[in-house]
Amino acid sequence: MNLHDTLMDMGDRAVAAERQLATLGTRRKNIILEAMADSLDASRSQIKEANARDMAAGREAGLSDAMLDRLLLTDKRMDSMINGVRALVALKDPVGQKISRWVRPNGLIIQKIRTPIGVIGIIFESRPNVTVDAAALCFKTSNAVILRGGREAIESNIALVNALQAGGARKGLPPHSIQLITTTDHDAVRELVQLQGRVDLVIPRGGEKLIRAVTEQAHVPVIKHYKGVCHLYVDAAADPAKALDIIENAKCSRPGVCNAIEKVLVHEAIAAEFLPRMAERLTAKRVELRGDEAARAIVPAMTAAAPEDWDAEYLDLILTVGVVPSLEAAIDHINRHGSHHSDAILSEDEKAQADFTHLVDSACVYANASTRFTDGGEFGMGAEIGISTDKLHARGPMALEELTTYKYVILGNGQIRT
Amino acid sequence: MNLHDTLMDMGDRAVAAERQLATLGTRRKNIILEAMADSLDASRSQIKEANARDMAAGREAGLSDAMLDRLLLTDKRMDSMINGVRALVALKDPVGQKISRWVRPNGLIIQKIRTPIGVIGIIFESRPNVTVDAAALCFKTSNAVILRGGREAIESNIALVNALQAGGARKGLPPHSIQLITTTDHDAVRELVQLQGRVDLVIPRGGEKLIRAVTEQAHVPVIKHYKGVCHLYVDAAADPAKALDIIENAKCSRPGVCNAIEKVLVHEAIAAEFLPRMAERLTAKRVELRGDEAARAIVPAMTAAAPEDWDAEYLDLILTVGVVPSLEAAIDHINRHGSHHSDAILSEDEKAQADFTHLVDSACVYANASTRFTDGGEFGMGAEIGISTDKLHARGPMALEELTTYKYVILGNGQIRT
Repeated sequence: MNLHDTLMDMGDRAVAAERQLATLGTRRKNIILEAMADSLDASRSQIKEANARDMAAGREAGLSDAMLDRLLLTDKRMDSMINGVRALVALKDPVGQKISRWVRPNGLIIQKIRTPIGVIGIIFESRPNVTVDAAALCFKTSNAVILRGGREAIESNIALVNALQAGGARKGLPPHSIQLITTTDHDAVRELVQLQGRVDLVIPRGGEKLIRAVTEQAHVPVIKHYKGVCHLYVDAAADPAKALDIIENAKCSRPGVCNAIEKVLVHEAIAAEFLPRMAERLTAKRVELRGDEAARAIVPAMTAAAPEDWDAEYLDLILTVGVVPSLEAAIDHINRHGSHHSDAILSEDEKAQADFTHLVDSACVYANASTRFTDGGEFGMGAEIGISTDKLHARGPMALEELTTYKYVILGNGQIRT
Repeated sequence: MNLHDTLMDMGDRAVAAERQLATLGTRRKNIILEAMADSLDASRSQIKEANARDMAAGREAGLSDAMLDRLLLTDKRMDSMINGVRALVALKDPVGQKISRWVRPNGLIIQKIRTPIGVIGIIFESRPNVTVDAAALCFKTSNAVILRGGREAIESNIALVNALQAGGARKGLPPHSIQLITTTDHDAVRELVQLQGRVDLVIPRGGEKLIRAVTEQAHVPVIKHYKGVCHLYVDAAADPAKALDIIENAKCSRPGVCNAIEKVLVHEAIAAEFLPRMAERLTAKRVELRGDEAARAIVPAMTAAAPEDWDAEYLDLILTVGVVPSLEAAIDHINRHGSHHSDAILSEDEKAQADFTHLVDSACVYANASTRFTDGGEFGMGAEIGISTDKLHARGPMALEELTTYKYVILGNGQIRT
């Protein structure tokens, strides 16, 4: 069968699964989740063997140490994956929730009810734990899922999905609720994102190249989980001690993630006093500082920022630093150069906080806290399938509720429209 | 300037307008809405002259009477357009609304705040009233809008947008908040739907060909307002008198709209008794009936339904009728052949109602009422920009709230992530 027909068939099977998933109640879904977790646990040796084959192939293909580390499934990582599935059991099932209800003058009762989205495609890169997380989150919300992981992790992903399917099936998981694209053919992504009428939503998670390809090829709705060019603005009214702690945390605690900051803008009124202290603090943490002219006039040790630095996501111990004449200039800079992910103001002035949080057009806007909190777990959602940098349907951390949509159920007793 | 650059410039100007719109409060927006309504009223003669030119060109181009009627702006239609703008003043402004708020154990206050989407593109066909409705709805929700109407209505649309802009500008409408694509070049649609980073959402309203072109070309998010292949299922436990009234209303009250029914499915237990009465009632209303084999065995006067009839949106006095063996068969048929718009069950059996409304995967699912109620006004939303047949972001009637998104505003006092 050619690739196109293969994907069409997967889509048809997913739609059929979706219809069956709609009939499962919360209790049954939780029993199935437990069975999937048990099955992962019981299949550890097969999964680790499959992962060892991926690791060997990866080494042979010359993958970087960082890539190989992402690919590796240790027992600790397996534990965390299995616990993640079990943790979903305790989370509230959003499906079926009555979002609102009102009665019209003609007696019609209108109810807005939360429902599954239907069939969700998830496209991701090398971490095999995403396979399990995404499958379990989609299942908890009664969505059928088609997974497309990175080719480096293909053996691991097949073993993981087999374990989930086998465990789930024993307790009534509808066939084809969780499907994995097993071909590593690059064109499968294009086929997947063009399955109109079969796939309701595609969530790509990964680098710029993957996201751009998906966006340009997609005929189905896409919610992007894109880069984080996060900013921190140190206002004239900032508390410098708080500011230094937050900047160090937001830059250094985990520089390789999307909610780490890449830029600091400092109000000119405090730049001369603040920048030397910041430079000292960050240099001790081996952060490379790149500055605009005004910043370098104060801290000459900074290298000169190039124009492209202002839009770059480094995911590394590099920070670009600028001096701005006003709050308005900071807001304007962030809206122009940021990626609408997470941005923060450090200020004790409540008016400045309010203006900043109102006018910065980002998914998460902070006052006096580290941008590193942009995370489903940290927000108290109990889970996360990713962080949407889009504005439609879901923005910021996406968890269970964001994997649902709604329908209107209208109850009448013979009403007609006059 | 070429088309690509023209659209890029419009996008840049819309983004700049969006930033200014974010600074307007509800009271100022309402003053501007009143000024726009006044300006439309004061510009009646110019608008009607422009419309007369469109009508003359339309007659010359051989537009059908139905098309010409859609294009025509009478004084009555002008009144209704102007009243529509004024009516928005009284509606609640969703922008800035606190959707939810919670406090994390570390003291972070997380607020989910409703915000404008940003820049919205609206693509529509010949009705010039859509120009005013869409512009006013987008403005009330602080979105910048780029309008692309049908070429037949170009003169009318230019006159309407000029009036809106001139009236609004007198009271502080930011420049370029409302832009109209004035070229009738077909490729402008493609350019518009590929303005990533400038346009946040495109809403196409129109026929199948337009929607398909938009969906396949778009690189920005799209919410489709597509066809309505609406079904009505007459259950074994239906009240026949109610059923006849509802069927007549849903089919005949306005057959040319998307929430009119195109199919009736009747449970076999009552078909022999019900179908002759339904045929009599609808034939008197000059409805052409097309039946499956079982229906024609009962009412031989029906013509034979062709396979394509089951998926067709007639927008005319035609109804396809089938007999089904069970509720489950009806649900399955509707999920397969419907357009996920509006479908209804007629039944006095609450279990059947619950199963049907739960399992039919449509934006609006009715029990014992006409599908013709799928409408923002009828739902009590006070306005409507269209009816989404998509599942993401908004489903069913879209009004003010559906033209917004949200952001998270997180207030701290120095929190860092450990």
